[in-house]
Amino acid sequence: MFNIALFGAGRIGQVVHAVNIAEHPQTNLYSIIDPFADNANKIANKYGCKIQSVEEAMQDANVDAVLIASATDTHAELIELAAKAGKPIFCEKPVHLDMARVEQCLAVVEAQQVPLFIGFNRRWDPQFKQVSDRLSLGEIGKAESLLITSRDPSPPPAEYVKVSGGLFRDMTIHDFDMARFIMGEEPVSIYACGSSIVDEGIKAVGDIDTAFVVMKFPSGAMATISNSRRSGYGYDQRIELHGEKGVLTAKNLHEDAVELWTEEGCKYAKPEFFFLERYKAAYIAEWNHFVEVLNGQAIPATSGLDGMQALYLADKALESLQTGKEIQL
Amino acid sequence: MFNIALFGAGRIGQVVHAVNIAEHPQTNLYSIIDPFADNANKIANKYGCKIQSVEEAMQDANVDAVLIASATDTHAELIELAAKAGKPIFCEKPVHLDMARVEQCLAVVEAQQVPLFIGFNRRWDPQFKQVSDRLSLGEIGKAESLLITSRDPSPPPAEYVKVSGGLFRDMTIHDFDMARFIMGEEPVSIYACGSSIVDEGIKAVGDIDTAFVVMKFPSGAMATISNSRRSGYGYDQRIELHGEKGVLTAKNLHEDAVELWTEEGCKYAKPEFFFLERYKAAYIAEWNHFVEVLNGQAIPATSGLDGMQALYLADKALESLQTGKEIQL
Amino acid sequence: MFNIALFGAGRIGQVVHAVNIAEHPQTNLYSIIDPFADNANKIANKYGCKIQSVEEAMQDANVDAVLIASATDTHAELIELAAKAGKPIFCEKPVHLDMARVEQCLAVVEAQQVPLFIGFNRRWDPQFKQVSDRLSLGEIGKAESLLITSRDPSPPPAEYVKVSGGLFRDMTIHDFDMARFIMGEEPVSIYACGSSIVDEGIKAVGDIDTAFVVMKFPSGAMATISNSRRSGYGYDQRIELHGEKGVLTAKNLHEDAVELWTEEGCKYAKPEFFFLERYKAAYIAEWNHFVEVLNGQAIPATSGLDGMQALYLADKALESLQTGKEIQL
Amino acid sequence: MFNIALFGAGRIGQVVHAVNIAEHPQTNLYSIIDPFADNANKIANKYGCKIQSVEEAMQDANVDAVLIASATDTHAELIELAAKAGKPIFCEKPVHLDMARVEQCLAVVEAQQVPLFIGFNRRWDPQFKQVSDRLSLGEIGKAESLLITSRDPSPPPAEYVKVSGGLFRDMTIHDFDMARFIMGEEPVSIYACGSSIVDEGIKAVGDIDTAFVVMKFPSGAMATISNSRRSGYGYDQRIELHGEKGVLTAKNLHEDAVELWTEEGCKYAKPEFFFLERYKAAYIAEWNHFVEVLNGQAIPATSGLDGMQALYLADKALESLQTGKEIQL
Repeated sequence: MFNIALFGAGRIGQVVHAVNIAEHPQTNLYSIIDPFADNANKIANKYGCKIQSVEEAMQDANVDAVLIASATDTHAELIELAAKAGKPIFCEKPVHLDMARVEQCLAVVEAQQVPLFIGFNRRWDPQFKQVSDRLSLGEIGKAESLLITSRDPSPPPAEYVKVSGGLFRDMTIHDFDMARFIMGEEPVSIYACGSSIVDEGIKAVGDIDTAFVVMKFPSGAMATISNSRRSGYGYDQRIELHGEKGVLTAKNLHEDAVELWTEEGCKYAKPEFFFLERYKAAYIAEWNHFVEVLNGQAIPATSGLDGMQALYLADKALESLQTGKEIQL
Repeated sequence: MFNIALFGAGRIGQVVHAVNIAEHPQTNLYSIIDPFADNANKIANKYGCKIQSVEEAMQDANVDAVLIASATDTHAELIELAAKAGKPIFCEKPVHLDMARVEQCLAVVEAQQVPLFIGFNRRWDPQFKQVSDRLSLGEIGKAESLLITSRDPSPPPAEYVKVSGGLFRDMTIHDFDMARFIMGEEPVSIYACGSSIVDEGIKAVGDIDTAFVVMKFPSGAMATISNSRRSGYGYDQRIELHGEKGVLTAKNLHEDAVELWTEEGCKYAKPEFFFLERYKAAYIAEWNHFVEVLNGQAIPATSGLDGMQALYLADKALESLQTGKEIQL
Repeated sequence: MFNIALFGAGRIGQVVHAVNIAEHPQTNLYSIIDPFADNANKIANKYGCKIQSVEEAMQDANVDAVLIASATDTHAELIELAAKAGKPIFCEKPVHLDMARVEQCLAVVEAQQVPLFIGFNRRWDPQFKQVSDRLSLGEIGKAESLLITSRDPSPPPAEYVKVSGGLFRDMTIHDFDMARFIMGEEPVSIYACGSSIVDEGIKAVGDIDTAFVVMKFPSGAMATISNSRRSGYGYDQRIELHGEKGVLTAKNLHEDAVELWTEEGCKYAKPEFFFLERYKAAYIAEWNHFVEVLNGQAIPATSGLDGMQALYLADKALESLQTGKEIQL
Repeated sequence: MFNIALFGAGRIGQVVHAVNIAEHPQTNLYSIIDPFADNANKIANKYGCKIQSVEEAMQDANVDAVLIASATDTHAELIELAAKAGKPIFCEKPVHLDMARVEQCLAVVEAQQVPLFIGFNRRWDPQFKQVSDRLSLGEIGKAESLLITSRDPSPPPAEYVKVSGGLFRDMTIHDFDMARFIMGEEPVSIYACGSSIVDEGIKAVGDIDTAFVVMKFPSGAMATISNSRRSGYGYDQRIELHGEKGVLTAKNLHEDAVELWTEEGCKYAKPEFFFLERYKAAYIAEWNHFVEVLNGQAIPATSGLDGMQALYLADKALESLQTGKEIQL
């Protein structure tokens, strides 16, 4: 049984990570660390775990591993502290919004030889994973073009957007990782086009809310990403992968399988509302994977380098958006 | 926390009930009772629970409730013993295959004033429940005709069929309960037509493997059930409810949401394989309900009378099959 | 080029048959015969064809064939007259509502050795035909159970129902023919259950508006028909054919292929409104077939005997409904 | 009745235009003009029309209008001749592959005040037209992003590609027009990325066979086009239009509505094979429109300017591809 110290008692900490740690037969929610006492208390009361300070947790010999789900700007420091304390690390993406800071942080991890897993949850989604697996099995031959659709149900608050690092680093970063995951090669060029048309608040803080990104790969294959901060109909998460013999499509999961046909037409349920619903199975699968890492049965499927590479693509997309040029990578 | 004694360590006991008892925050798998020591040991080892005899479990004051998932022919006796021991009862359908025995058993339960819940799991399926709920909300007006499709992926062994009570009592019984659940009224007539065309083994033991049943209700509404012991493409579990304003359909759940389009056509995944997959959410929901019963927050949504009524319809369907007549109820 | 005399300038004559005759490269709409001068004039003006009386048409040596799409109670007499005049006959179903009258009429046709084609249009629907063809190709092995859904968008006027011969002879007759067409064998038993719940007018004239029919075939296969005079969502025309290896389903054709996803859910178009839309391709295909008959390249795919057999099943369904018994055939 | 001179007896002339002219109640296929006598004879024999030279047709006072479906490099000259002869013109896209030549040609048409309709058939597709209409009706609010998918079933011969003007001018030109049609505004920037990965022959002649194009519009809305010369599964023609309230999607039309479910999974028919099948209704609708133009009831919905604008976008896409820059328009 591994004792886990959970950093961050916010929504994803409460609804996803605390639950998955507690329900896994080999992990125990040992402690919760959060500057907001209310949130920490909520989890401590529910799961009967300790409340610790950062220092206590890092120094506690009973802590077998850490799960970092705190605010983005704390990730790099917590990773370094945990690495120095010799504790295996599960960290929500991103490591940091600044590339230089990421490199510095990864150097520390490297030096300490501690396993670091970056939580790109979508790689563990059974639908997307299947697309990748079936490509490997040759069902569509060589990959030729990939279309990734990722649209949030509704815009986040402007305050969140302000500190998010912008659309590409906050939202598209998942799609950059997905493109790398599916294509199995690194892009050689990137182009981005964006707009602020869905939310006044986002526009006011100088970010875009809608984007198209195009990437080209060494094999000649191409990928496009279509993003919006507001779909209006739930969480739109689809992949379309065209190859020599045809296309593999991962469609949305819908809220239920009931249809109503009336004079008005035929109606069925919207896509699952948001990431907590849609990626429930993915979050469990990635935690199972991390436990395998703790057991020495696997090495992290997505490392700090994956986090860095996705961030690099986000930075280059931003450069393209600002210069109106296709950027060579 | 309620201590549960689980009777029956067979497949459904292992894969469904032991898991759900263990995972519910308010229930504890206290003991397992099964004449086959191997099965009992398997569960005892996995969950760290006691192995008890029937008598021990019934007399053990620590046992707060019993879950009966043993062989069908033991249900009635175990129900009576538990009722006399004052323990609330969750019992898999059916109470017994013989109607007179059912009545006798329910009389004992009645006398002891013990809660008895009969596990008609499909009522708790989110899809079917939604059809019922949306009918109540008036989405299609008054119900007019109901089509229930229930087809198993592949035939059970002939030995099972031999002691199963026959297709109507073993398989269609779920559909009879579903028809009562959806329509909210008791049928006034029933007709059944059956055939032995999918499996030689079933034919050899004198049972049918394919059937159509038609029922009429006091309101004039009608229902039809279509059954087969072998679909060839997974577990086919659908409902189509026509009303004044249109139709509500609960479609199958499929194994995944990935499509492949090639020269050969467009292909997607089969329906979920069988009841363990398809009704996973339903089994959890019915256990949640039973815990509410234990907490005194609910009375059993399906009682012994529901079990009896479904069995009665099965008996009458058989009578119709044998006489070639529509039976008045 | 074959000159066709068209009997009946009502809706189906105008919208379907006149058009198909006129558009076929080998047929010419030569004359229209209808007691209602207005309707006849409409067609004559549009296509520049003659208006004739029944006698004129039958005696006119220029008329190469007749198409009977007049009121049901005129069919038998017109068939006999055409047969005696030696003119090949295309007649809308049914020959007559009275079985004895049908036999008498077919005897006349038989004696005259004139080709008689009965218009069971649905056999020519590309979807249903494909189900039949793919069954023959062995895609699902031997047929085991057939489910036919046939629901009209909205009830016909009570005056029509009064002279229609009742639901089974007017509407279900198509489904009886479809069952025979798909299964390729004659049923050995039939059961029918019906209700008057969708339309007061239909109830008032003593007919049913909703029905389930079950038939059994010599092979042990079974079929069920589900009918309603009012679906509320367009014309519901589906077939589900289960066999040894799986199921072939002909789904509805919808009005278009546009979907709208919003906060309210996902919405797509209703099934095609009614038979003129849904069976447009079928009507053209059956006319092409009849022209092949005229050319001596084919014999009628559905003869008077098919019409008689479907009527026989309708009569027996009615007998079952009235006696509450499964009828042996 | 309008007498039409048809220029071009190739595939589209034979299968689409000759048929539509002949079947329209107000148009008559008067003459066919084609340098290949065999093709011209085929049409003349089938429809009983004259064979004319270009000069004869242009000077024939009986010719009421011309339909130009000949080789692309003859379009501009034929348009000019017809304009000077005062004959209304229906011309397949494009006017010419060279922009300067297009301008010269349109100036002649302008001077002669003759109606010129450019056949962008997809605007008349009932699915795409409905997306446009429902956007106008406000079903999704303001348009935000448009995704156009256009993939041919299999690559054309390299000889065709060589004289086609390249992917953007030959194939994407339809999508440029579609984007303008749906969005109702002219793009302000364009970016294109392409690859030669599906066909060696296309690569050999220096063209691309796969492309992504991104355009931005004055409103801030964006559009992307995804093209391939080979889908492997039929003609893939879809549109996805996201707006403030949700998304309108025009899905593919499939060959039929029959599904097969077996042990292997669930299977349905491929998209319609190619443009002759998919756009059959569109070709008829555009001809109906042109007849309205001839009747003075409409002005051409797509004029020479539309043809020129689509060609302009194709040229700019090529410039972007060659320079790796987003081009400002």
